[in-house]
Parts: sequence; structure tokens; C-alpha cells
Amino acid sequence: MTVSKRAAIATEESLHRIFTIPEAPDSTLGRIEQEISQNLTGFLGDHIVAKERALSEIEKDFACSNIPEQPTFVSEHTHHLLDKVVSQSVHTSSPSFIGHMTSALPYFILPLSKLMVGLNQNLVKIETSKAFTPLERQVLGMMHRLVYQQEDSFYQQWMHSANHSLGAFCSGGTVANLTALWVARNNLLKADGEFKGVAREGIFKALKHYQYDGLAILVSARGHYSLKKSADILGIGQDSVIKIPIDANNKIDCQKLREKCQELTQNNIRILSIVGVAGTTETGNIDPLDVMADIAAQFQCHFHVDAAWGGATLLSNKYRPLLAGIERADSVTIDAHKQMYVPMGAGLVVFKNPASVASIEHHAEYILRKGSKDLGSHTLEGSRSGMAMLVYASLHVISRPGYEMLINQSIEKANYFAGLIEQQDDFELVTKPELCLLTYRYNPKAVQDYLTRCNAQKQNEVNDLLNQLVKFIQKRQRENGKSFVSRTRLEIEKYHGHKTIVFRVVLANPLTSKEILTDILAEQVELAQESHTFLPKLRTLAAQG
Amino acid sequence: MTVSKRAAIATEESLHRIFTIPEAPDSTLGRIEQEISQNLTGFLGDHIVAKERALSEIEKDFACSNIPEQPTFVSEHTHHLLDKVVSQSVHTSSPSFIGHMTSALPYFILPLSKLMVGLNQNLVKIETSKAFTPLERQVLGMMHRLVYQQEDSFYQQWMHSANHSLGAFCSGGTVANLTALWVARNNLLKADGEFKGVAREGIFKALKHYQYDGLAILVSARGHYSLKKSADILGIGQDSVIKIPIDANNKIDCQKLREKCQELTQNNIRILSIVGVAGTTETGNIDPLDVMADIAAQFQCHFHVDAAWGGATLLSNKYRPLLAGIERADSVTIDAHKQMYVPMGAGLVVFKNPASVASIEHHAEYILRKGSKDLGSHTLEGSRSGMAMLVYASLHVISRPGYEMLINQSIEKANYFAGLIEQQDDFELVTKPELCLLTYRYNPKAVQDYLTRCNAQKQNEVNDLLNQLVKFIQKRQRENGKSFVSRTRLEIEKYHGHKTIVFRVVLANPLTSKEILTDILAEQVELAQESHTFLPKLRTLAAQG
Repeated sequence: MTVSKRAAIATEESLHRIFTIPEAPDSTLGRIEQEISQNLTGFLGDHIVAKERALSEIEKDFACSNIPEQPTFVSEHTHHLLDKVVSQSVHTSSPSFIGHMTSALPYFILPLSKLMVGLNQNLVKIETSKAFTPLERQVLGMMHRLVYQQEDSFYQQWMHSANHSLGAFCSGGTVANLTALWVARNNLLKADGEFKGVAREGIFKALKHYQYDGLAILVSARGHYSLKKSADILGIGQDSVIKIPIDANNKIDCQKLREKCQELTQNNIRILSIVGVAGTTETGNIDPLDVMADIAAQFQCHFHVDAAWGGATLLSNKYRPLLAGIERADSVTIDAHKQMYVPMGAGLVVFKNPASVASIEHHAEYILRKGSKDLGSHTLEGSRSGMAMLVYASLHVISRPGYEMLINQSIEKANYFAGLIEQQDDFELVTKPELCLLTYRYNPKAVQDYLTRCNAQKQNEVNDLLNQLVKFIQKRQRENGKSFVSRTRLEIEKYHGHKTIVFRVVLANPLTSKEILTDILAEQVELAQESHTFLPKLRTLAAQG
Repeated sequence: MTVSKRAAIATEESLHRIFTIPEAPDSTLGRIEQEISQNLTGFLGDHIVAKERALSEIEKDFACSNIPEQPTFVSEHTHHLLDKVVSQSVHTSSPSFIGHMTSALPYFILPLSKLMVGLNQNLVKIETSKAFTPLERQVLGMMHRLVYQQEDSFYQQWMHSANHSLGAFCSGGTVANLTALWVARNNLLKADGEFKGVAREGIFKALKHYQYDGLAILVSARGHYSLKKSADILGIGQDSVIKIPIDANNKIDCQKLREKCQELTQNNIRILSIVGVAGTTETGNIDPLDVMADIAAQFQCHFHVDAAWGGATLLSNKYRPLLAGIERADSVTIDAHKQMYVPMGAGLVVFKNPASVASIEHHAEYILRKGSKDLGSHTLEGSRSGMAMLVYASLHVISRPGYEMLINQSIEKANYFAGLIEQQDDFELVTKPELCLLTYRYNPKAVQDYLTRCNAQKQNEVNDLLNQLVKFIQKRQRENGKSFVSRTRLEIEKYHGHKTIVFRVVLANPLTSKEILTDILAEQVELAQESHTFLPKLRTLAAQG
């Protein structure tokens, strides 16, 4: 036997082994798994390096573009992952990571995720998912009912109907919004006489047939960037997404919305959809959905609500009224991986009318045959995992009242934090929490006073300096690694629309305590003192007045 | 303290517990997890009920549309999942499940998936993914190099460049194909003079500006249904996907492709993209990519290769030449969850030109700021999981030669199975394997003989009966639950394009043995005898001859 032949047999045996022999409990990976199972927080705390390394440094560990020619032992590779990947990942579940919409996950999610991966179902079709298909349809039914509150008989009729769908599961809110607008576009520009519909003939012929000069999607200035992206993808064009000004509470100005609708209609631009935002990404505010539904009805257009972030609030009987009117939407996006505490990858959209997805139906010879219940005939994505099981399990284990408690606590915590900010001399609350999201900035008392008495030009000068200071603090705080708040830039009415950089916090992690919030502010005050350019300049300016 | 107040506190405590107290090792879920870790095959074999229950029966277990008002204990819910979901799921990793592109997974994937979920990174931006961002870029670089084989310096320059991207990770092949065509469309109809580009102004104005009467995407008759779906979504219209006839080997007829390109161009229809298929879903054949690249160059259009299924073949030095010409494609789709043995949800597309994604770039205020390395500025999806880590780990643990061995074995197994089918009197091999995919049908020797001597009308009659027989066998075999082959319907040249139902098998599971293949054929012969309508009719017909 030659050396290369012997090597080949050895490789073959080791390959067979990775498919058939489990990781031993005392192997490196086995031990890690036990650590994760027993104490995820401890594991992440021990292994994620708090102090930030520069990205350019980290990139050096990921510089090789060759696929390895030599296999690595699992244990060795696991050490490598711990050392180079886990250590430099982001502790998204940390109670002091309050900058984005990722939170701690319940413990039962971990073993269930493993079960999901082990089952490796493909939900595009029954043949690779069987029970997961009715399970997903049930979850969509539950989420539909959460939004639309139809009768039992409605769900009995439609939930498992082959040619209907109450919604679509997908990887996230972007695909959910895209799916909703795709359905809206195809229903608006449907087959008519000789014209076979936009799905078959495309937008160019559709607009010619219907004799429109263009389409428009209207949303508040706080609308998510995925709407522009969707308009681009759908061939409508980003410029067709018309941003309507907001009021002082970051809600769409309905008067301006109505006027814009009239203007567009007069100009022969057909309104494809009005999009309400239920929980803006930047400030967490909810549009006046009921009034928007009236306007959509008046202009006979699709009414979509992007509740990717705020949709879970419907689980709270106490705060549900904030979203009044959502039940009049034609479609609603909700991300379960945001406030429903399941891992990344669980977006969904529900449709009021179970027949509306017919406009995006498609078939193939080997699957999705007509009349089949294959979920793939009504989804944008093809092959998909069984993520619906995690939402299903969470709905059962946590239950609606459990979710209500989590959501109420988050909102109340945000109110508490807002109070804390307002009590402190050197902070300015910029947007009050309606849900569990708020924005604020560092702004020393003396500077705040100066801003009330100086002229607009000086205001801008001060605000530019404050922007730099807030950015400085936010970056430094992230680098220190003890806590994380994000930042965004908002046009603030009281500063004549000046683009103002603010801290943005999302208080959805149930483990974030009041002490942590106090500490975060204290750290920011300290960090501000480390700014040797912006803070002194601000003090000098303020002293002038 | 009132009863309701006390209940609320109890709920609050139990809620806190699910976020902080791990599942005990001796809990139901803990035990299941250990079973999965120690013996996944055994676990699935024990818990998945082989005998098929009617879907309508299963649906009864998923009929309730109310979100539960009472929490369920994790252990209780786990029993419920085992009983109602796992038991009725599909054993996709079984070595006798050879009907679709799902396979067994290596064991190390299970604990790594759990680690991925525990880390819960969001790859849309650095702030929620840090090291995962360069990691994903590296994986894209490796896959790009696998396809395009550029020099080290190329990857040094582009792999981690903020304003470039070598590709995009996504949930699967459909989104990958859609992304590729989106990029192609936006580059073709780019800004020009007054016109701000299709991304901003949409297709209607773009076609008017460029004075085209339409767009076209050309692909073989074996192209995947996601291309039509993409054309629909992108506003081009499904009818713009022009299916070019195939030759006897299921490859696109390049002469007809060239002629159609000429015809379209003469009719002022701009060719957006020619799409080569590298591994058709139904037969596994590969288009003559090199010739197609010539034609795409001649007509100056985007050349995309859908290698969702077959792309992994590039890892085999032996079979790589089958895909010769792929390195000339502008974009290539590859699904890692197919022949790269990672779980569902790992699609990707690579672009030859790292700058081509600029046409789909977008930004937002709170993330994806200009110049940032946030992956989300060049992807269709927004929030995404750290799935790239599983591909990264697999490339290191299995390595290229390991993948080569797996892929070579699969192809050789398919050839073995083809031989087995041809040896048997009562089977007809319909499409030979080029990769590890083949189709065949049950067709008794006497009927095969009759088909060679009867007229076309009789041929159709026989083929219709065979269709029903094959469908009968396939369904019955699936219901018996011992093994699973899929079926599709192909237009067969030797039967004058008659739509012929065939068994379709995909031999990608490394654990599928020769004995299993023999048994599958034996079971099909037995099942054929159970057909008391089609088989006797066929015998009668054949006896006439």
C-alpha cells in the first residue's frame, strides 16, 4: 500500500467518524457545550474579552483566503474558535448591552435550537418538514390572531388551507417588509384584460397598461431603511419611498400624509402603500395607525404596518392600545427575534386577507405542486429552517401573560431610566420612551442653559460640539467593554432640525437592572471628562453667555 | 396580598428563572439534549414514527389559533414536542432518505450550532457581531477563491475592504439568485446623465431612459423556479425569464441560446443575464458554462451561474473540470447547506468584481454608516445570524481534500446506483448521473420492449400509465417510511417530449450504503405489485404487441 493510499484511507475513516461518532463529553467541544448549558452567562463572561481590539487587528486573524488543504481536529479548531472568534464576539445578551435589539434568551432555547438543527427540516415543502408545516401555519395563525383577532371559524377555515396563507415566516424584518410590498404591488397591478399582471409582465408594461406615471410608498421620516431597499428590489425605485415629516413625538404628521397623497394622486402617481411604523428603530414611537388606516382607505391603497420591533407589544393587554388600528392593516411585519426572545432569524409577516398571497404564488414540477400545502409556494425564500418551532415553544412556555409581564417591565424600565436621565444635571432626554426605547445625550447643565439663550448660529455651533462629545463618549464606552449604548442622529425640532447625535438605548433585556442603568450614566459622566477638546470648548462657549 | 398579586409574583419569578437558571441535566430537555449529543441517529430513529400519518390528521394537533393564556413547564412542553412534532417530522438525515438535498450532518455541527445561538450575534453590523464580520468576509473570500482562483494580492486588497464585497451570505439559494440578479439589474440600468439609476428611479423610468422595450433573463428549461420568482420580485416579470431548450443530457442548447439572444436584441429587448445551471435541481446536470460565457460576452450581459447544488463540486480537484467556465461568471450562487454539510440556512453568492455590489449599497443613520464595514450595507437581508461560523468550522475541520472525498464518493455512488438500475429488468434509467443526482422509473421489461415497437399514440398511453404507477410507488414508499425517493416530471426526448414522471434520487448522504440502494429498488418492485390497476393494464397492453 502506498503512502498516499494509506493517507486516503485514514482521511476516509476520520470523515466517517465525524458523521457517526459524537463528540465525547470530555472533549474540548463537549466541555464547552456543558459550560454553555450550565452557565451561558458565565461562559460568555469568561470567554468574551471585554476590552475592545481594533477591527483591523481582528481582521489579521481572518486574512487567509485559501480553503485549508489539511483537516484540523475538532478539539483544536474549537480552541481556535474560542481564542479568535468567541473572545472577539459581542456579548449581546449582557444586561449592560442596551444599545441594540438583541437580548438575553431563555435557557430552554439552547437545547431546542440544537434539536432544531439535529432535525434539520426544510420548510419549503411537506416532504422535508411534515409536522413542521402545520406547526408553522399554526404559529402564523396565532400571530395573525394576535393582530387581527378574528373568530375561531376564520382560523378553522384558513389556517391550514392549501391555497391560502395567513402570512410568511422569513429570516427577518427586511424580507418580511419586502414580502408585504411584493404582495401589495402584485395585487395592485394585477391581471386585467389582455394584461397578464405585473408578476408575469413586469412593472414597465404594468404601468403602461394602467397608465400610471409612477408608484409611491409613503412612510414617516422614521421609517426603516428596509423600505427603500424593498422599493429598489421591487423595481419601484428608492425615490418612490416618500418620507412624510414627523411631529415632535416622532409620529407621522397625518395632515401632511393626506396632502401628499392628494398631490401624488393628482400627478397620476398611484399610491402603492402607506406604511405605518409601530416602534421606530431609532426612537420606538408608534404612528397613529387608526388615522393612517382611514387615509389608506380613502386612497384605496395597501396599508402595511412595520411592527418588526413593536409588534410584540400586542401581547401586553395593558399596552396593546398603543397600536390601535393595527388590525386594519393589510399586512404586518413582526420580528420574533426582537421582543419575543427567540434567536436571530425569526421574522414574519401576516396578511389580513388569507387570499392576498395568491398574487405571489408559484409552483415547480418536483415540489410546490398545485394544491399542495408546501409552504414554499407562498414565500420569498426557498429552503428554510424550522425556526418556527422556537417561536411555538416560546409561545407555550412563556405564554401571553408571561410576555405581557416582560413587555410591561421593559417599558416601565425605560420610563424609570428616562426619569433618571431627567434628574441628572448633565444629561438631556431627547426622545421619551413610548415603548422600551429612548434617546438622550450628554449635555452639561451650563451648556443646556446657554442653548436656551443663544442665537441659532451659536446653537448650531454648540450642537456640533455636543455631537462630537456624544460620539466620543459612545465610542469610548464601547471600547471599554463594560456596557454598550448605540448612537444615532436625529433631526430635532427644538433645534430647528439640526442633526443631533444621541445615545440610543433599548431596554428589552429582562436582566438589565436599575443599578446597571445608574452605572451607565456614571460612566458616561466620567468619560466626558476625558474629552480634552470638546468639553473645554463647550464650557468656554457656555461661559460667554 | 391578593391572589392575583401573588400569582403575578410567581409568574415573574418563573420568568426570571427561564432567563437565569439552566435546564437541569436530568430534566426532560436535559436528557433529550444528552441523547442528541450522544446518539443523534438513535434519537431520531427512536422518536420519529416511520409510518406516515395523513397530514390532515397531523393538522388536528396544530389547530388552535390562540396564544396560550397559561404557561407550560418546559419539561411538559418538551414531552409535547417529542410526541407531536419530532415524532411526525421527517428523518432527513437518514441514509435511506435519498429524495432531497438534505443529508446527515457531522456531529461537531450540533454543539457549534448551540454556541452560535448562545452568542446570538447579528451580522448586519459590526456592533452586534465584531469578529463574526471579518470571519464571514473570510468565508466569502474562500468561496470566491474556490470559484475565481485569484491571486493572494487580490484577496488582500478586497476581502476586508469597507466599500467592496466578494459576495453575500444569505438564507438560501433563492435569496442568493435574487441578490445576483438585483446586482445585475442595477449595474445594467445604472445612473446615466439626468437619469439617477434604476435603484433610485425604478424600472419604468429606467427602460424609458435606455429606450429598451423590455429585459430578458435566459436559462435552460431546467433552471430553478427561483429565477422566475426573482424576475417577478425585481419587477422584470416572470415572462422575461426565457427558457431555452435542452439537449438529451439536460444541458442548455447553446445554438438555440445564441439565436434567442440575437432575436431578442433585434427586438430591442435587452438581455439582462444569461444564467448557467451547475447542477440542475431535477437531474444534476451542468450547462456548458464556457460556451455560455462566450455568448454572454458577445451580448455584453451579466453571466450568472446557479451552482446552489453543484457548486461544492469545485472542492473536488477530480470533478472540478465539469464546471469549467464558472470562473468567467459575474456571479455564482452556492448553498453550503446542500453539499457542504451545514444545517439549513447557509446560502451565498459570490461576485467576480468586488465593486459590483456598490449598485445595491445602502446606508442608515444608526448603522451601516458610510465607510463602515457593516455587512448589512451590501446584503438583501438585514439582521442575520452567525451561520458563517458553521461554514468556517466545516472548511477547517473537513478541509478541501475531505470535501473532495465526500463529493467523489457521492458521484461514484450515483454511478454505482445507475449501474444497479440498468442491470435490473424492470427499471429504466432516465437521466444518468453527472453529479450525484439521477432519475429513473419503474418500467417492466415487457413494457419497455413494447414501447420500442408501438406507435406514438400507444407510447403516450403507456407512458401515462407508467406515470401513474411511478407516482403510486413513490407515494406508497414514502408512506411506509423505510426510505424516501422524490419524484419529478421531465419532458423526455425519446418519448417526443412526453411529460414523464420519474423517481429522483440525490446521493449526498455519506452514510447511504450499497445495501440500502439495493433494498430501495427491491421495495419498489414489491410495491409495484400492489398496484392493482396500473400494472395489470400495462401488462395487457404490452402483451398486445
